[in-house]
Amino acid sequence: MMTPQDFFKNDLFAENAGVVLLEVRKGYSKAQLTIKPEHLNAGGRTQGGAIFTLADLALAAAANSHGTLAFSLSSHITFLRGSGIGDTLYAEARERYIGRSTGCYQIDVTNQHGELIATFESSVFRKEQRVPFEVSE
Amino acid sequence: MMTPQDFFKNDLFAENAGVVLLEVRKGYSKAQLTIKPEHLNAGGRTQGGAIFTLADLALAAAANSHGTLAFSLSSHITFLRGSGIGDTLYAEARERYIGRSTGCYQIDVTNQHGELIATFESSVFRKEQRVPFEVSE
Amino acid sequence: MMTPQDFFKNDLFAENAGVVLLEVRKGYSKAQLTIKPEHLNAGGRTQGGAIFTLADLALAAAANSHGTLAFSLSSHITFLRGSGIGDTLYAEARERYIGRSTGCYQIDVTNQHGELIATFESSVFRKEQRVPFEVSE
Amino acid sequence: MMTPQDFFKNDLFAENAGVVLLEVRKGYSKAQLTIKPEHLNAGGRTQGGAIFTLADLALAAAANSHGTLAFSLSSHITFLRGSGIGDTLYAEARERYIGRSTGCYQIDVTNQHGELIATFESSVFRKEQRVPFEVSE
Repeated sequence: MMTPQDFFKNDLFAENAGVVLLEVRKGYSKAQLTIKPEHLNAGGRTQGGAIFTLADLALAAAANSHGTLAFSLSSHITFLRGSGIGDTLYAEARERYIGRSTGCYQIDVTNQHGELIATFESSVFRKEQRVPFEVSE
Repeated sequence: MMTPQDFFKNDLFAENAGVVLLEVRKGYSKAQLTIKPEHLNAGGRTQGGAIFTLADLALAAAANSHGTLAFSLSSHITFLRGSGIGDTLYAEARERYIGRSTGCYQIDVTNQHGELIATFESSVFRKEQRVPFEVSE
Repeated sequence: MMTPQDFFKNDLFAENAGVVLLEVRKGYSKAQLTIKPEHLNAGGRTQGGAIFTLADLALAAAANSHGTLAFSLSSHITFLRGSGIGDTLYAEARERYIGRSTGCYQIDVTNQHGELIATFESSVFRKEQRVPFEVSE
Repeated sequence: MMTPQDFFKNDLFAENAGVVLLEVRKGYSKAQLTIKPEHLNAGGRTQGGAIFTLADLALAAAANSHGTLAFSLSSHITFLRGSGIGDTLYAEARERYIGRSTGCYQIDVTNQHGELIATFESSVFRKEQRVPFEVSE
């Protein structure tokens, strides 16, 4: 069995964007992204898609942490504060609900000062198919 | 005055992801992304963040098409069908409402067969600051 | 077999709120609510919950129109224009996607002048259980 | 100056639905609804609109608690567990962000056993207009 970090290296879009998966436990994960010029939008702030990608990887790690496959049905992101070059963003995913077929996760995106940059909530659909990595409690 | 295509080349995150802005009119835009290995998640399907980035650029083009700055307050994305390598995705943004301070946009993401891949809705906040590009009606 | 109108008379919350189900076809429905003092919030405008209830009944009718049970996983509502006493609101539900286990519906809420009051999008979970009413194509 | 409880008695839709405002502090509120037959949908469970109305009143109380008017731009509700006759639901609103023009609130809806029934997140627009009630810290 591989680690979640090994497995999610195959998430090429998040990997190429520079997202680093810091920690995964059952129903929880934390990921990080340091903002560089390539993450900016035309206004010189962090692009919404970069923040979404960071949060989405944290979601995937937490939602798949129980050993079976889960994928996102819908996600809602609210942008609260701007960020830009030199900021380091953290996404922490917490499980709010888990049932047989569905789950609900909340991801807070904060900066290096602990300020809330964005909130992200996602509903996932759970399948019986196993995932090829294992996490501790 | 530059064209919207010139201006949004400065959206480095969308540009690096391969998003192409096809068309911008007042309250409308269309963008395109051809899915390559670098857009995939660990499960081999298009990463949610790649689809979000495509839709978000279409949103930005449509919401800024009136000549003043608008930025996203919140976005809601629903994933309906999977996609993968070789698919070409299109995001079409339509204005549902525009007021003095706020606006609402709906973006449909479809594939090369016209199938709906994702829906995306965004509320924007409108500022008085001018944007440095111009669009025709 | 009863009609959808008969069946949804048992939705006591919507019924007591005054919601009228005008039309149901497969994947489509239209409902109506005339705003009276009892629908207002403390600011004298239509309460968000009244608009939600109108849209939610339209959703339920459209999502259950295929003969099997569907229930809402999440709903996203965006409030665009105010309304108040004497306005008549209409909710039209359209199916954007239907799969084996899930579906996606978009509901536009308009007033008697055809102005868009709110947009509502909902993801539903579909069960195999039959519903006790039938609709025509 | 009146109390928030006095003021929100004028929210006739929530009042008629039976929602009770238990507590309001700056950026926080808690409301309650005991489920009776009139809150049910056609399937015999609590109607989504009843849960939304409970959460929406908690939102209004928390968002207006700073002395100036705030109204909801968009709300996202996720339904996690069913409820029915005899259940007592509680909505607790917490402020996640407050700026000059906008704010973000998260409302958890739980039952009498402390189980999470629904999550609700709302973005509000803040005006300079005063509200006619006062809350303590």
